[in-house]
Amino acid sequence: MDDIAVKRHLSALPQDVIDAENDKLMAAHLYDYESLRVRLERSDVDIETVVRRLMTLEVGLPSWGMISGGTRFARFPMPGEPNNIFEKIEDCAAVHQIAGMTPRISLHFPWDVTYDYTEVRQYAEAYGIGFDAVNSNTFQDQPGQTLSYKYGSLSHTDRATRQQAIEHNLECIEIGQKLGSNALTVWLSDGTNFAGQAQFAETLERYLDSMTEIYAALPDDWRVFLEHKLYEPAFYSTVIQDWGTSILCAQQLGPKAQCLVDMGHHAPNVNIEMIVARLAQFGKLGGFHFNDSKYGDDDLDAGSINPFQLFLIFNELVHAEERAAKRGAAFDPSYMMDQSHNVTDPMESILNSARAIGGAYAKALIVDRAAMAAYQDANDVMMGHNCLRLAFETDVRPALAEARRRKGGAIDPMAAFRATGYRAEKARARQPRRAERGGIC
Amino acid sequence: MDDIAVKRHLSALPQDVIDAENDKLMAAHLYDYESLRVRLERSDVDIETVVRRLMTLEVGLPSWGMISGGTRFARFPMPGEPNNIFEKIEDCAAVHQIAGMTPRISLHFPWDVTYDYTEVRQYAEAYGIGFDAVNSNTFQDQPGQTLSYKYGSLSHTDRATRQQAIEHNLECIEIGQKLGSNALTVWLSDGTNFAGQAQFAETLERYLDSMTEIYAALPDDWRVFLEHKLYEPAFYSTVIQDWGTSILCAQQLGPKAQCLVDMGHHAPNVNIEMIVARLAQFGKLGGFHFNDSKYGDDDLDAGSINPFQLFLIFNELVHAEERAAKRGAAFDPSYMMDQSHNVTDPMESILNSARAIGGAYAKALIVDRAAMAAYQDANDVMMGHNCLRLAFETDVRPALAEARRRKGGAIDPMAAFRATGYRAEKARARQPRRAERGGIC
Amino acid sequence: MDDIAVKRHLSALPQDVIDAENDKLMAAHLYDYESLRVRLERSDVDIETVVRRLMTLEVGLPSWGMISGGTRFARFPMPGEPNNIFEKIEDCAAVHQIAGMTPRISLHFPWDVTYDYTEVRQYAEAYGIGFDAVNSNTFQDQPGQTLSYKYGSLSHTDRATRQQAIEHNLECIEIGQKLGSNALTVWLSDGTNFAGQAQFAETLERYLDSMTEIYAALPDDWRVFLEHKLYEPAFYSTVIQDWGTSILCAQQLGPKAQCLVDMGHHAPNVNIEMIVARLAQFGKLGGFHFNDSKYGDDDLDAGSINPFQLFLIFNELVHAEERAAKRGAAFDPSYMMDQSHNVTDPMESILNSARAIGGAYAKALIVDRAAMAAYQDANDVMMGHNCLRLAFETDVRPALAEARRRKGGAIDPMAAFRATGYRAEKARARQPRRAERGGIC
Amino acid sequence: MDDIAVKRHLSALPQDVIDAENDKLMAAHLYDYESLRVRLERSDVDIETVVRRLMTLEVGLPSWGMISGGTRFARFPMPGEPNNIFEKIEDCAAVHQIAGMTPRISLHFPWDVTYDYTEVRQYAEAYGIGFDAVNSNTFQDQPGQTLSYKYGSLSHTDRATRQQAIEHNLECIEIGQKLGSNALTVWLSDGTNFAGQAQFAETLERYLDSMTEIYAALPDDWRVFLEHKLYEPAFYSTVIQDWGTSILCAQQLGPKAQCLVDMGHHAPNVNIEMIVARLAQFGKLGGFHFNDSKYGDDDLDAGSINPFQLFLIFNELVHAEERAAKRGAAFDPSYMMDQSHNVTDPMESILNSARAIGGAYAKALIVDRAAMAAYQDANDVMMGHNCLRLAFETDVRPALAEARRRKGGAIDPMAAFRATGYRAEKARARQPRRAERGGIC
Repeated sequence: MDDIAVKRHLSALPQDVIDAENDKLMAAHLYDYESLRVRLERSDVDIETVVRRLMTLEVGLPSWGMISGGTRFARFPMPGEPNNIFEKIEDCAAVHQIAGMTPRISLHFPWDVTYDYTEVRQYAEAYGIGFDAVNSNTFQDQPGQTLSYKYGSLSHTDRATRQQAIEHNLECIEIGQKLGSNALTVWLSDGTNFAGQAQFAETLERYLDSMTEIYAALPDDWRVFLEHKLYEPAFYSTVIQDWGTSILCAQQLGPKAQCLVDMGHHAPNVNIEMIVARLAQFGKLGGFHFNDSKYGDDDLDAGSINPFQLFLIFNELVHAEERAAKRGAAFDPSYMMDQSHNVTDPMESILNSARAIGGAYAKALIVDRAAMAAYQDANDVMMGHNCLRLAFETDVRPALAEARRRKGGAIDPMAAFRATGYRAEKARARQPRRAERGGIC
Repeated sequence: MDDIAVKRHLSALPQDVIDAENDKLMAAHLYDYESLRVRLERSDVDIETVVRRLMTLEVGLPSWGMISGGTRFARFPMPGEPNNIFEKIEDCAAVHQIAGMTPRISLHFPWDVTYDYTEVRQYAEAYGIGFDAVNSNTFQDQPGQTLSYKYGSLSHTDRATRQQAIEHNLECIEIGQKLGSNALTVWLSDGTNFAGQAQFAETLERYLDSMTEIYAALPDDWRVFLEHKLYEPAFYSTVIQDWGTSILCAQQLGPKAQCLVDMGHHAPNVNIEMIVARLAQFGKLGGFHFNDSKYGDDDLDAGSINPFQLFLIFNELVHAEERAAKRGAAFDPSYMMDQSHNVTDPMESILNSARAIGGAYAKALIVDRAAMAAYQDANDVMMGHNCLRLAFETDVRPALAEARRRKGGAIDPMAAFRATGYRAEKARARQPRRAERGGIC
Repeated sequence: MDDIAVKRHLSALPQDVIDAENDKLMAAHLYDYESLRVRLERSDVDIETVVRRLMTLEVGLPSWGMISGGTRFARFPMPGEPNNIFEKIEDCAAVHQIAGMTPRISLHFPWDVTYDYTEVRQYAEAYGIGFDAVNSNTFQDQPGQTLSYKYGSLSHTDRATRQQAIEHNLECIEIGQKLGSNALTVWLSDGTNFAGQAQFAETLERYLDSMTEIYAALPDDWRVFLEHKLYEPAFYSTVIQDWGTSILCAQQLGPKAQCLVDMGHHAPNVNIEMIVARLAQFGKLGGFHFNDSKYGDDDLDAGSINPFQLFLIFNELVHAEERAAKRGAAFDPSYMMDQSHNVTDPMESILNSARAIGGAYAKALIVDRAAMAAYQDANDVMMGHNCLRLAFETDVRPALAEARRRKGGAIDPMAAFRATGYRAEKARARQPRRAERGGIC
Repeated sequence: MDDIAVKRHLSALPQDVIDAENDKLMAAHLYDYESLRVRLERSDVDIETVVRRLMTLEVGLPSWGMISGGTRFARFPMPGEPNNIFEKIEDCAAVHQIAGMTPRISLHFPWDVTYDYTEVRQYAEAYGIGFDAVNSNTFQDQPGQTLSYKYGSLSHTDRATRQQAIEHNLECIEIGQKLGSNALTVWLSDGTNFAGQAQFAETLERYLDSMTEIYAALPDDWRVFLEHKLYEPAFYSTVIQDWGTSILCAQQLGPKAQCLVDMGHHAPNVNIEMIVARLAQFGKLGGFHFNDSKYGDDDLDAGSINPFQLFLIFNELVHAEERAAKRGAAFDPSYMMDQSHNVTDPMESILNSARAIGGAYAKALIVDRAAMAAYQDANDVMMGHNCLRLAFETDVRPALAEARRRKGGAIDPMAAFRATGYRAEKARARQPRRAERGGIC
């Protein structure tokens, strides 16, 4: 096995505790890793290649996901939650130290507004943390805000309100440039609660006009991600309600506009992996907000409800990457988590979700694609299907643990994190947050 | 036509404005009423009987529905919203004055906690307003609360937490007795976000133990309503997740326990009117929370998404009442609205919803039940169906307007309400509420 | 009122029976019509204009919908069903005679294959019946068929199978030209039951290649309608699974390719009227398959489950027509029913569905669009919504009856149809069909 | 490891081919088995115990699932399908020989009607095959049937039709007794396609009356399983539409009546494992029809869409069994597959589904229930969840393979089955079936 990468950054967690935890598990890990190596070798899969590719997987973390999330009914914070962007970066760094795959944080404005972004950037860089897409927010009214978003923002009937929302997005791009981001994510909550509240076509035209102005302000190497969502907070219609509207708008805006898939933003029963494939095929797959859901936009931990679906999505991603490579085309979707941790420690949920996402990727990597393609051509349905099923049934945890270990992370993320006593210490050091009668954060 | 009922109560709105609005519409109203009378007479339906039954319809209003509702993302209040239970009662009285069918308010604790319930009751009685079911709240943590409901309340694994939740419910019953209520509604948000978070059976056993204590404290003439809900705020499982669990629990608790149907608390595609029929057939239909929904528990205005479904529910209610009458059995479901008015004036939404509910009832009343039963026996599917369709297609608004008018209300509720300038006046007189980053109220 | 149009065609039903039925209802009809006229006049709506526009509404009938439909479990025919294309045309003519809005029949091949299409066309023309879009069928294997469609047709992995499916479509176009059709509807059932059975992107590429050949064969004045469907008969993925894939393919194929919306082909909770608006806005709304559904592709009678949704769709259609007119653009969607009449007389279901569709159109026509637009601009949500609600609550049946009557049809379609004794006579004259263990027709 | 059980029965497949296949895989199998043994031992799980419990798992096969299934659109048979009950038993025996866990076949009448059930029973016994629950069919009309089930059967408005359906069920019990079955499964397709077609309460009363007669005819050691289903073939309402109605009816009928859960018979998003827990808690869990679904009653292969859900169901079953054992109560649910194999070889799909079901059971067996209970009590949500997640992520295939091997079955079922050339041989020997225009079988 490779040597562990040399640490060049500040450590949010005591590395010796992680190492000590790894030492305890090392013998078992080596045994399991060897067992998996042998098993994969039988199918002509080189575990070393899998581990190396797993080590390249990067998933951004949302700043708002570092604290307890809530529903409209309540929010129950836990002791030791971060209170500002610096503490959130520190938590992100701690997670990355253990999981080795979350090197970027995604900020959200005005939630993460601060006075000096250079300081923020330097603080993050000291921990080896970079900045993912910046997120604009035109779904809330902020204290002192001139015009209300109650009836919409980028698609509002009032020009001045649209302009205010446009300018907020332009400001987000400016901040993002200071931070070193290279993308803007626009989730637009505009929509209606009543038939007759607005006209669908005219509303979308106004949205496209506004987005055209924002698009024009994108730096050359930036992308803008359009995030569709079926419903919530609007309960009758939403302007960018599905991938169909999203891709039509992205086409109209131009090549820097791409579509972002959040796994909880679709109608019941919809085949999400197919949407991923369609967006990739038409050149508009911008990225993901990983999470899981059973009912609506539940924002549960990735892989906690339907891990097979997560695997099937990565199966499409690996296939799309191969297709793109054959054509010499770029394929660079942006991965991020977007979860609401209502009853768990957010850092633990993220560590577990990183395991789930990495595991899904690992399983997608060991699919025998040549065999599967042959079965598909021959309409040998059962064998084609089993190429996926057998990969999914394989226990890839040792490969994943090895990828983490080589980056200085933990063989058992949850055990290592708890061993550090990080949260308990922060509970002593940080200001407590109070329970609230509702709200996501 | 009958004379208008003599007013005996304080008026929240200037009656002369309502009367003046009615005067403007009277000629047209009389024309439309006569047209409908003739049309119904042709089908042997006496419009006078319909109007008299409409005048008996009573639907409670939730105190929390008198202010702007919100989602987890934001809440956008409007000027002039009520700030306390007295102002909410005043708004309820104003609505009742116009709609003539909302004579009760349903309080929610601790949201509506006050120091002197005798004063509250007297205040309400002066306006002719009574008190509907009291609602307990164990889904939020209140300032100063000893034990948290983050992981549950009546079904919590910890006995002391369960006891705290039980005592809160007992206190609600006590308050309700002071107010003259005769029912307790228990909507339990307990549930889980993760498989493995709790054991289903043991959790339900703890819930039943807790409810048994609450049930024992019910006064003789009280009922307790169990309100099921598929999901939210819990996103993997909910303890009382559907009518099946609800009725099994109600059976176990005893005759005072009945099931309450909220129209947005079911899985997609479910036939809600059939659930109403089943609950009625098995003697456990306690009542309704009227609203409408397209996706989840959207809490939209009754009849705004699927008015035919609302009519079909009333069709079952009228049928169940007739069945009960034949057997000499009681049939007394409790009706209430439970809506979240996020983008409309709450009072206007309630006025419109009252129209929708009254309209659905009126249409159910004019169904030719004898003919329908004969078609059903003969499996004349199309004609059986059309007994409902033709009733639904009938414009019953004149009958509804007449029922309102006879009670001193408005022929055109929205026009009359706006003519009074009530909200604008309150916007001057009442403290403004600030926009919030989420929360239902 | 206008005079009744002069009959120039063969009558499938005895016109005197219809007229006699109308005579019985005439006095009541005149009273109701006048009442509605007065009511609409108050809102500045001219009933005469409404009636004239209703008289222009045309909805095609599917030949396969003229007989009892079935599920995979069973099919229960009724006596007197048509046994061939001639008898189906006769039934279509009978329906049109009463309803006055179903002047075309849509054929399906090879179900409606016959030896002499000139004879068929002449037979139909004698009854005043024309031919709607022709429908290809590559979802079944026919006796003697060379290659099986078990694993796909236009998207099959095997070139020869694709070619067979292409040629079948070309043949349909040829037949359609003989009949005077001007459109081909391609509902492709290709899809998979298992993840891994096929590759999404490659499958769609094959489909597009096949469709390109079919598109090239379209006569100048023809259109091809792409009909998306979420699932069934494929239960994991479907090639044209939603409007997003449909419109991307239609864009790629060219201007003659448009999207067709069947109301039961969407995921649960999806806002279908919004999809209609989107397709219209992007210039790709080809037409409709009207029906209704509660669960999946239930193919129930239009307006029988959610009549408000049907109205909202027509509201979008009327709005889209106005938008197109302002821009001088064409707007000519093709309307058809596509229902499965499993427990009713197909002709009666169609008559009732015509009432529902016409009623939805009539209600959309009386919406005060100028007022609604003003409310929308001002974000007066409740009043904007009520522009739709109040139109929907209006009983437009007299206008609809008048439109039928002026075309020689029936004031009460069901009563008139039953009075003719048509089905009973056919039960004597036509060969009976036997009950079957499953299948749509 | 144990010795392989001695064969006492006729072999449907050449055992030497299976053995030869096993020989090829034996070295790899032993390696993987040992790796898993070590891994489980670390968690104090004895693999031997797991294997022994897996060897006791029995899942019945439906006779109708032995041939290609279809949809309402088409059915595409494959060469070599069985044409009668004897050939179906032979296929069942072949599957059982390889999978070692499908020792019973479930017959369906009148589909499996034959003249001499003694002969059938002897034929099956020669292969070591027994008989699962018998299934009645009142959802189709059979040639020569006196009264039609078009409008219902056990709940029909007509007494004579109900009586005919009752007698059919009584006959099924009689046949079942001859075969050695001990249960009757009643899936009632009765329902409506239109609101107003029937009255819900009266219909259920008629159903209960009919079932009371059938219940009375059950032999002492028999059970009757009530199978609920949300929709299809009825598309507006179904008499036994969900587990709520099912359990209320089972309670009313008596202790021999229990509820049967088919995984595709629920509304979207419903938590099925919770329903399993509820039915078990209230003593009415009769059994399962295993399959999987993405949209409706898709009848796909068990575990092919959501294998985690299948595992969670077995997690509830193992928990319920432990709960019952503590109370000395019986817990004996009946397991069966009910799949429609539309595009695969039915025998291969069943072999793969047996793997999925066995795998889900194996994973449920290795859950650390004591640890999970402790986490649950402490509301350590993440660790409680991970007790399930980690068990699910474990690759239990070696234990499952070993259980099969010890019973004389195959280490790799699919490879062994194909090696026998069974289907190709039957394609030569058996009469071919023709493609059909729809129907399940």
